[in-house]
Amino acid sequence: MSKHKSHRIGQLAILLAVSEEPGIVEASILSSDYQSCIGRVGSMESNKIVAAIETAAKKNGFIREGVYREAHALYHAIIEALHGVTRGQVQLGSFQRTVGLRFAIVRGKPYKEEAEGEWIAVALYGTIGAPIKGQEHETIGLGINHI
Amino acid sequence: MSKHKSHRIGQLAILLAVSEEPGIVEASILSSDYQSCIGRVGSMESNKIVAAIETAAKKNGFIREGVYREAHALYHAIIEALHGVTRGQVQLGSFQRTVGLRFAIVRGKPYKEEAEGEWIAVALYGTIGAPIKGQEHETIGLGINHI
Amino acid sequence: MSKHKSHRIGQLAILLAVSEEPGIVEASILSSDYQSCIGRVGSMESNKIVAAIETAAKKNGFIREGVYREAHALYHAIIEALHGVTRGQVQLGSFQRTVGLRFAIVRGKPYKEEAEGEWIAVALYGTIGAPIKGQEHETIGLGINHI
Amino acid sequence: MSKHKSHRIGQLAILLAVSEEPGIVEASILSSDYQSCIGRVGSMESNKIVAAIETAAKKNGFIREGVYREAHALYHAIIEALHGVTRGQVQLGSFQRTVGLRFAIVRGKPYKEEAEGEWIAVALYGTIGAPIKGQEHETIGLGINHI
Amino acid sequence: MSKHKSHRIGQLAILLAVSEEPGIVEASILSSDYQSCIGRVGSMESNKIVAAIETAAKKNGFIREGVYREAHALYHAIIEALHGVTRGQVQLGSFQRTVGLRFAIVRGKPYKEEAEGEWIAVALYGTIGAPIKGQEHETIGLGINHI
Amino acid sequence: MSKHKSHRIGQLAILLAVSEEPGIVEASILSSDYQSCIGRVGSMESNKIVAAIETAAKKNGFIREGVYREAHALYHAIIEALHGVTRGQVQLGSFQRTVGLRFAIVRGKPYKEEAEGEWIAVALYGTIGAPIKGQEHETIGLGINHI
Ligand SMILES: [Mg+2]
Ligand SMILES: [Mg+2]
Ligand SMILES: [Mg+2]
Ligand SMILES: [Mg+2]
Ligand SMILES: [Mg+2]
Ligand SMILES: [Mg+2]
Repeated sequence: MSKHKSHRIGQLAILLAVSEEPGIVEASILSSDYQSCIGRVGSMESNKIVAAIETAAKKNGFIREGVYREAHALYHAIIEALHGVTRGQVQLGSFQRTVGLRFAIVRGKPYKEEAEGEWIAVALYGTIGAPIKGQEHETIGLGINHI
Repeated sequence: MSKHKSHRIGQLAILLAVSEEPGIVEASILSSDYQSCIGRVGSMESNKIVAAIETAAKKNGFIREGVYREAHALYHAIIEALHGVTRGQVQLGSFQRTVGLRFAIVRGKPYKEEAEGEWIAVALYGTIGAPIKGQEHETIGLGINHI
Repeated sequence: MSKHKSHRIGQLAILLAVSEEPGIVEASILSSDYQSCIGRVGSMESNKIVAAIETAAKKNGFIREGVYREAHALYHAIIEALHGVTRGQVQLGSFQRTVGLRFAIVRGKPYKEEAEGEWIAVALYGTIGAPIKGQEHETIGLGINHI
Repeated sequence: MSKHKSHRIGQLAILLAVSEEPGIVEASILSSDYQSCIGRVGSMESNKIVAAIETAAKKNGFIREGVYREAHALYHAIIEALHGVTRGQVQLGSFQRTVGLRFAIVRGKPYKEEAEGEWIAVALYGTIGAPIKGQEHETIGLGINHI
Repeated sequence: MSKHKSHRIGQLAILLAVSEEPGIVEASILSSDYQSCIGRVGSMESNKIVAAIETAAKKNGFIREGVYREAHALYHAIIEALHGVTRGQVQLGSFQRTVGLRFAIVRGKPYKEEAEGEWIAVALYGTIGAPIKGQEHETIGLGINHI
Repeated sequence: MSKHKSHRIGQLAILLAVSEEPGIVEASILSSDYQSCIGRVGSMESNKIVAAIETAAKKNGFIREGVYREAHALYHAIIEALHGVTRGQVQLGSFQRTVGLRFAIVRGKPYKEEAEGEWIAVALYGTIGAPIKGQEHETIGLGINHI
């Protein structure tokens, strides 16, 4: 029997990315069947954001090295999350703006039915704004995919 | 002197929308200078999402009735939040999908400098998916604007 | 020899749509080889904007009835103009907003070289905003296509 | 050992949707391990396109009834295919245009490595244009997802 | 009492950007309460367009140096204007195209009600096309925001 | 009298781009009044895709050198085709992905009515994915324009 309710995977990813004390959230993940990791990335180049999250996912064993199926699932989750961060055109430097993000990746079984299998959630939270200190506001994005 | 750090306004909005016990978050808002309200809306029509948030904002006195400037600030914050929810085309029914969202609106002064004035944050959190029970996953969006 | 400089066709369309006294602009069009017409349309449905401009173009003989090639050229010019009006997602009612527009269509030869042939410009100017009187600001769009 | 080369799944879907004699293509599918079905749908409402393809997929046993994971994989493949059909904003009626499409769904293992598992391809081919007979041109779209 | 009608701010920005004799338009601005400036920028990089307009706005005292609130208002007005210029994806060099633009910034109170306060309009007008002389057509964009 | 049915131009372009033996398709083009060419391009930069197709079109005499009208028709067909390839944001390298494409350009008269004149179709087919060998899936795009 599942220890957690349906579709909490995104919530955990969001809280990990947003919380100043992710330790509390991580504890609730430890008591669940989810795997998670967090990281930070700042850039004016969106491809660097994608690469940083992919690297963290591989390093932490969230996606199997060399299995495109899993890289594909993660990739689309990242791109969906970037849509929330950018709110329109997924452009950073070409829009004269930069981001400083904390990201969280959570993988596990969010649905009670065994047939639903594993899913992956990518949450991004941080600031977006001009490449001038302080000229920025918060932003968030979440992408979820079956894996 | 400000009681809170820069740009926490989005974080509070997110936590209000995401938390299962928003009471804890609301307490931390009460101790700050922010105003906030939460609500729920579910629809296949994106205009109903917009209207529900606008109505809540007006009813709670977050934007002054009849002042377009404030309605304009809120409107763009809502639309930006919807981009995170929909991740691409801001379409629900025409994409054969529906959302069930909790929303939070937070208004206040997120920056230490007095000249930065008031800002508004709109966070949306919930599920998006097929109009079939259970066939949905989580989604989030955040829009922030000066008001 | 051409009586007008290159690519003035858009400028004329814009001035016809924007000017409070389009008569002055029309005079300058009469002295050129351009054909033009103006009209008005207000709606929360983008398809009604498209249809109104198409109807005006046909009624004024700007595009030949039954010739898809010309309808296709006009159609893409209209859609491009709508992008300027909506600035992101080309949505009106589903975004809880409405437009009141004056439109101008100009057809003619904007380039000196005979091989460049005829082009069509569609300019839209007016207001966009909430379906509440006064809660709106100005907007413009221009689409240009070879025909 | 696999009987087919890597990533031919999309090619088969395209040929099924485009060919005037899909029988020839179907023969080559029969000799492979792929499953496929074709159908037709015409509409000014994009949600009807989505629903028609989902219904065909369920009826033909391409996705397991009640398994969201599979519906989710198919859904995103359909939406991606619609981007190719609409080339910008995924809008039909609100853009005063309609489509008449043949669609093909192919499911199977396009990669040699067993770990890559099953994928699904959705191809759409037909015409898009004004709701006036003959005022239309061809269009295509392809969406591919792991399932 | 206001000397000008509601929402003329965009019209003035457009006329300043479009007119060959902006002097006439500037006279009508002088007799109003609006502030305005014009400039030119040509580039294949959209961030250079953004930066050029931001620099002009700061140099002319249209936005207060170091006040993010004002930079934020201007930024979103610029991005909205770029949507009109690019009509779809806000991309220049990556789409193998370049722009040559005249821009106008107008700041002031476009509404009769004092509570509406100040707004900013950014108009862009010029040519867009291949990086080959003469292979271009006109384009326009307008962004308006409360400031 | 026309030797071919209405709007087959896209179908021919698709088959030329997709087929492993384009010779068969080319034969059917030879027996028609269409002109066609095929080429290959792979890149992480979308502008290189645009440039490669434009160069092939010029070299093969599909568009008249120095005639903007024809370059404009081709350009918009290419951009429309890229929408199908990228399915959302028309971005490659900035999305940490690359494409390997075969392209086909077909020019001719797809409609029976003489007034419909010439049209151009651009089809792109190949793979899109991570810049890692094998981590890619198929993609297609088609753009059609009057010329
Ligand atoms: Mg999804
Ligand atoms: Mg902002
Ligand atoms: Mg053009
Ligand atoms: Mg993919
Ligand atoms: Mg606005
Ligand atoms: Mg078309």
